[in-house]
Amino acid sequence: MRRSAHAAPDERSPRLGGGGEFSLIRRFLEANPLPLDVRVGPGDDAVVFVDGLVVSTDVSVEDVHFRSAWLSEPETGYRAVTAALSDLAAMAATPVGVLVSLAFPERTDVEAVMSGVKDACREAGTHLVGGDLSRSPGPLVLDAVVLGRTGRPALRSMALPGDELWVTGPVGASAGAVRVLEAGADPGPELRRAYARPRARIAEAARLAHASVLGACIDVSDGLSGDAGHIAAASGVRIVLDAAAIPIHPALAAHFGAEESLELALHGGEDYELLFSARPGAPVAGALQAHEAASLARVGHAEVGEGVWLRAPDGRERRLLRGGYSHVEDVAP
Amino acid sequence: MRRSAHAAPDERSPRLGGGGEFSLIRRFLEANPLPLDVRVGPGDDAVVFVDGLVVSTDVSVEDVHFRSAWLSEPETGYRAVTAALSDLAAMAATPVGVLVSLAFPERTDVEAVMSGVKDACREAGTHLVGGDLSRSPGPLVLDAVVLGRTGRPALRSMALPGDELWVTGPVGASAGAVRVLEAGADPGPELRRAYARPRARIAEAARLAHASVLGACIDVSDGLSGDAGHIAAASGVRIVLDAAAIPIHPALAAHFGAEESLELALHGGEDYELLFSARPGAPVAGALQAHEAASLARVGHAEVGEGVWLRAPDGRERRLLRGGYSHVEDVAP
Repeated sequence: MRRSAHAAPDERSPRLGGGGEFSLIRRFLEANPLPLDVRVGPGDDAVVFVDGLVVSTDVSVEDVHFRSAWLSEPETGYRAVTAALSDLAAMAATPVGVLVSLAFPERTDVEAVMSGVKDACREAGTHLVGGDLSRSPGPLVLDAVVLGRTGRPALRSMALPGDELWVTGPVGASAGAVRVLEAGADPGPELRRAYARPRARIAEAARLAHASVLGACIDVSDGLSGDAGHIAAASGVRIVLDAAAIPIHPALAAHFGAEESLELALHGGEDYELLFSARPGAPVAGALQAHEAASLARVGHAEVGEGVWLRAPDGRERRLLRGGYSHVEDVAP
Repeated sequence: MRRSAHAAPDERSPRLGGGGEFSLIRRFLEANPLPLDVRVGPGDDAVVFVDGLVVSTDVSVEDVHFRSAWLSEPETGYRAVTAALSDLAAMAATPVGVLVSLAFPERTDVEAVMSGVKDACREAGTHLVGGDLSRSPGPLVLDAVVLGRTGRPALRSMALPGDELWVTGPVGASAGAVRVLEAGADPGPELRRAYARPRARIAEAARLAHASVLGACIDVSDGLSGDAGHIAAASGVRIVLDAAAIPIHPALAAHFGAEESLELALHGGEDYELLFSARPGAPVAGALQAHEAASLARVGHAEVGEGVWLRAPDGRERRLLRGGYSHVEDVAP
């Protein structure tokens, strides 16, 4: 349940603009009666059943979500599964198994793709338990299904006015890598790694939930702005992001100016860091291991109102609108 | 976890021959450590967790598993979900939810496909609870993920020597429809319906399990011969099918001779009837509702040994080998 956020809007890379897929799948699901044992339905990062079962599925399509020229086959498998596992992290769920369906063209080395799938499972402490394979007469298509468990899911709707907003690590690097690759240049190892080998923040979410500091939670897949918007809409709050506090990935500086780097951090997406709310003064850093806390950043707060606003160092606020890379609209606070 | 059984082995319809997909996915899964809470791992129709959760996934690819010229869009959605739900029936599991990932080319009417998805859910008494959508620069790809629950899964390994083998309804019609369509002819409403609107035998499996008559169980997706072979291999028994008892779909007679009809019944696949074992004399028909029992057939039995054998009316037996439409090898009994 994610837009294909980073895919380039050119002809080789057909995509639905403006969150079209997102609203389309929601339309089908919302018009649909839900079983009684569904506790959290469509509209969050994953479905949660009353017994704590969490399920999410994430489809990756060649030339829509990735280009085979940019990712090795193991990276393709790794990244698709990590994107799905990140939805479990966003619910503070512990993975219990992964299923992968693969439709692959003749040229694909299936073993190589599956080695990346297994890497992603291993890194998240889980296992491949099933799947399906088929030839594809077209692109490589990989659908990752993740199963998890949680006692208390972290929902997008759980932010309260007064909460602080946190992000677990630097943002913008994955989208930055794509922008460099699209220009035919070399993004260098750090940006490339952020794009090709992201981490699902499973352990961090578990620790934050265990310490009872986790309010609303989402993984940064649509970009900090868009994902803050999801929390704001679901929680019925206004979120103010502090421009100076946003942890723009340092490797962006080698390729982009300050303004473009900020834009990538806000609107790029697919960073798979967690964006979450916590009560003011909650011991967020103390809940994490030292190396995890080192990349933690408090990026803003929630207040009464609606929408997502960016506060500049001079105190001026402008509203951020959901959408592409540069839909930033200047509005007086 | 199913071969693309009916797809034509021509150039428009690339497929892996000889159960290649089947053995490939098994290879990845069997080389893989399973989580401790998996009770039934890959190799059966679905994964079963210790708490009774059952999960299966089934990918349908245009021009591999179906042709858009042969199925309407609602039928495409209906059929893909029913094929996955049939895996739950084969485990005697009750569906609790369906997720659908769709990668669709520009021409696709997504609402029409999803209306068929919802029909299949409704018919099985379950609901669409999640999914993902993406554009596809190639074929329509539909991955159906089904979740179910069972107290006591019906496994392929549960047949005992002496058991009777039963099938819940006529077989061969779906493959017959495909063969007629491939020849550019009209299969007529009955064969077409068997292909385009199969039923997942959820209710029948539940009734048989409730009455404690269900031994081994599998859905007929690879063909009666191949699926009997799965039971024989998993249970360590020899299965003898009685040629005269096989419920060849009556509508095949309008298009095929007796020999070809038997071949379609044995090797065609995608009928989605249940093939199951029961102790001799078990009240199988009595466990079902009258209209379900009316199409029930006792097709053979299990004995000590291995493999699947076809007993002709004259008592001669020949071994049936797993594979394509006509891999029937004459072997003296």
